[in-house]
Amino acid sequence: MPHIKLGNDEHGIRSLFIYRPETAHPMCLLAETLLRGPSTLSRGERELIATYVSSLNDCGYCTASHAAAASAQLPEGMPLVDLVCAGPESAPVTPKLAALLRIAGAVQQGGKAVRTEDVERAKKAGATDLEIHDTVLIAAAFCMYNRYVDGLATTVRADPAAYATVAQTLVRDGYLGITRQPAETN
Amino acid sequence: MPHIKLGNDEHGIRSLFIYRPETAHPMCLLAETLLRGPSTLSRGERELIATYVSSLNDCGYCTASHAAAASAQLPEGMPLVDLVCAGPESAPVTPKLAALLRIAGAVQQGGKAVRTEDVERAKKAGATDLEIHDTVLIAAAFCMYNRYVDGLATTVRADPAAYATVAQTLVRDGYLGITRQPAETN
Repeated sequence: MPHIKLGNDEHGIRSLFIYRPETAHPMCLLAETLLRGPSTLSRGERELIATYVSSLNDCGYCTASHAAAASAQLPEGMPLVDLVCAGPESAPVTPKLAALLRIAGAVQQGGKAVRTEDVERAKKAGATDLEIHDTVLIAAAFCMYNRYVDGLATTVRADPAAYATVAQTLVRDGYLGITRQPAETN
Repeated sequence: MPHIKLGNDEHGIRSLFIYRPETAHPMCLLAETLLRGPSTLSRGERELIATYVSSLNDCGYCTASHAAAASAQLPEGMPLVDLVCAGPESAPVTPKLAALLRIAGAVQQGGKAVRTEDVERAKKAGATDLEIHDTVLIAAAFCMYNRYVDGLATTVRADPAAYATVAQTLVRDGYLGITRQPAETN
């Protein structure tokens, strides 16, 4: 049960977005820009970074939501998402993505945990400065979203399969669609 | 030295905002809404929460910047900011603010560290649901800003006194003044 009365039956961050639309808008705009805006990282790769950080933060709602979004936008689907969450170093991803996931994992621990050698490894694997920037900010942003969702003890979806259904809408309409649309069913 | 080439000589998050204006805009809008928008918590109290979380995250740039902004907007000034950062439980703040700072400190550790009894204590001390919500989100947001600033190894100001000067502009113009984006994509 959420720590405060949210006045709606939505789950996770969506219940908070309905409760406080003034903060929902910039948070959705940030997610849209980072995860779906123009980038040399694919939308699937960026959702994978978001999922990995959410799993490190043990945020069930965000991990399930973004795993579904990543899976829907990656050719390798959910098996790759699961392998990355189990340990990105042994997952079948490119050396560049492995290095970016290493940076994301460091950011989850704390900004100062990102070492110069982590960044050098990413650059040597072909990552651009902007890709490194966006990886750090995606990881940092999910340290916010995850804490927001769990810090107010929001609910998770009763049916795990519902995350995949919601992800289809998200892939189609994006994050700005969340605050415009009427609530999804479960 | 920053981990990536930012192409400007600004410090801390301001150098990142210049580097990537697309993400700067929602981040500034979120800060403006949370720290300066309509609220039953004063601007000084909200900056105090931001400062306390930044100090727990050991982020020198953000701690100094928001300590200066809090000090400029609190009658008790910097001595109170220092006492709160040294330990909010023994600082001379109201029971309500002490309880909200306790929640903010829990969020810094992780969303699930916020206990039902922490929230009950805040409610008993007179905190509204919205004040609790905003405290959690301010704390969560600074877990993002702090990681962004340190995860890319941005620079701090050479002259510590400069933070107070910059805070004056911030108090006058707000966070949206930092980027002055032309139009918000809605």
